[in-house]
Amino acid sequence: MALRVAVLGAAGMVGQKVLELLEERSFPLAELRLLATARSAGQRLPFARTELAVEEVTATAFDRVQLAFFCASTEASRRWAPVAAAGGCVVIDKSSAFRLDPEVPLVVPEVNAHALRRHRGIIASPNCSTIQLVLALYPLHRAAGLRRVIVVTYQSVSGTGREAIAELREQTRSVLEGRPATAQVYPHPIAFNLFPQVEDFEADGYCREEHKLMDETRKLLELPGLRVSATTVRVPVFVGHCEAVNVELGRRLGREEALRALRAQPGLVVMEEGYPTPQACEGRDEVFVGRVREDPSHERSLDLWVVADNLRKGAATNALQIAQRLVEEGLLPCA
Amino acid sequence: MALRVAVLGAAGMVGQKVLELLEERSFPLAELRLLATARSAGQRLPFARTELAVEEVTATAFDRVQLAFFCASTEASRRWAPVAAAGGCVVIDKSSAFRLDPEVPLVVPEVNAHALRRHRGIIASPNCSTIQLVLALYPLHRAAGLRRVIVVTYQSVSGTGREAIAELREQTRSVLEGRPATAQVYPHPIAFNLFPQVEDFEADGYCREEHKLMDETRKLLELPGLRVSATTVRVPVFVGHCEAVNVELGRRLGREEALRALRAQPGLVVMEEGYPTPQACEGRDEVFVGRVREDPSHERSLDLWVVADNLRKGAATNALQIAQRLVEEGLLPCA
Repeated sequence: MALRVAVLGAAGMVGQKVLELLEERSFPLAELRLLATARSAGQRLPFARTELAVEEVTATAFDRVQLAFFCASTEASRRWAPVAAAGGCVVIDKSSAFRLDPEVPLVVPEVNAHALRRHRGIIASPNCSTIQLVLALYPLHRAAGLRRVIVVTYQSVSGTGREAIAELREQTRSVLEGRPATAQVYPHPIAFNLFPQVEDFEADGYCREEHKLMDETRKLLELPGLRVSATTVRVPVFVGHCEAVNVELGRRLGREEALRALRAQPGLVVMEEGYPTPQACEGRDEVFVGRVREDPSHERSLDLWVVADNLRKGAATNALQIAQRLVEEGLLPCA
Repeated sequence: MALRVAVLGAAGMVGQKVLELLEERSFPLAELRLLATARSAGQRLPFARTELAVEEVTATAFDRVQLAFFCASTEASRRWAPVAAAGGCVVIDKSSAFRLDPEVPLVVPEVNAHALRRHRGIIASPNCSTIQLVLALYPLHRAAGLRRVIVVTYQSVSGTGREAIAELREQTRSVLEGRPATAQVYPHPIAFNLFPQVEDFEADGYCREEHKLMDETRKLLELPGLRVSATTVRVPVFVGHCEAVNVELGRRLGREEALRALRAQPGLVVMEEGYPTPQACEGRDEVFVGRVREDPSHERSLDLWVVADNLRKGAATNALQIAQRLVEEGLLPCA
């Protein structure tokens, strides 16, 4: 069954990865429509040894489209996802617009693919830092019951977009040449520096990324009362997010038992010797976990180190996997 | 009272900072002797608008020296500190050689200066990451009793030494120019990368830096049973260590009460708005704490973000402060 597919935000970093993966995975395409807001429309983008024009998104852009990947802004998703869904198209939305909407499934296929069955036209893909976290938490939860999670992140600049990659590169060059680094995208210089802020702060002193991590983890794991604390930090790395995670479980899980549970989790690669780094995980579709330790400060707790490519599994790969599940389970509209 | 002082490892990064601070603080010097192992002896180093020759450390090098700063290797400290102390010199040792020795005081002056009184010739200055941690923990402990600490670090390369600074610089240049980054000092490339390993791993899966953090914190705070878990991570930053700290207390401490306790701690700068970054703290002698939050996952816990210049307060400044206390309290041998 070949599908008529649209990609909104095709020129962006995640949109580009989605195109790469559609090609790489030989996704069954009857038609591929590249869409963007007026600003980016008109561009031509390479795809499968040809070039496609980017069209402006309009009320008729989703006509006859069966599946759309939304990789543009949260505002664009808020505006266009209901339009596309009303016309019968299924939207896989990478933005945060609908993630906490109780009507919208929030899905990491290896964790809660079952939630796809109740979709009503919009499916949300979680925040990058949440995806890799839940893939490591889920098997531990199944083995011993999650009680509390303390997660501290090391997040690369590609999560922000191309302008942040350029800023890290430019600032780094300036510092090496002895010139001052000027910050435009971020509130502080990022070259050879880091800061505990990812997105804006909210009134309670947590930044938006921290709320996403806490709220989305609860929804994904279907544990609305799960106790979670998050500290999110931007670091001078181009691609790849890392997380130091402390997990309190319902019963003691020894290292060997924990490793067994983690190894059985699809989509997760367990490193028993050594550990993953952002650079080593770049371009990979799996989530990597290493440094699995029994926490000496609490008998029912474990410490973990979790790494993933934030543009692949943290964004495009997860969206593609959702699409593949929809196809396999016959959850898309007929041609 | 002017003192006869020696600096072992004067040419190293910490030794250089000690010289800078001796000058900056107009430390009362009757004589300053620069010492090094054979490899570095013979060099001339600038000090107070003149130059001093570095002498080789020998069994007689500490004759008539009242106070010595040891800023060389752990091996050099193991060999020469007992020699210096036996001759009546008081050694302030920056290495890890004697830190856990029950006969040796391990001191952060703003926290446990009282321990200096029982010194027997050797005083240990803690590991850089421990110093900044205990300065933030101590006032909270006094206010509400420490129960458990989970600390995750972001450590700059200057903690390793000059060769690591050169490696970060060289690798960064290579990456910007599209050449591969080769790792020599570290087990992985550090440019635009990071890894959860600081020093070698021990049999229990924790690396040596993690053990230092856990063990030294217990000794400094005189809480031998304190439950601590540490994850130490090297990041591509030149100077400044950061720590994300989760602190469980004996009773609930609201944010306002916590801020009050932290503000009362000498040596600690509390940021109520914004937060410290490694770059902003470079060259500063204080420890900085920000993002003080009530942990939503535990009613008696707080989250903190702690930053310090690892070469200043994390090393040279703490050693100088110990020296100043010894002078003030008359704990040095007579001239």
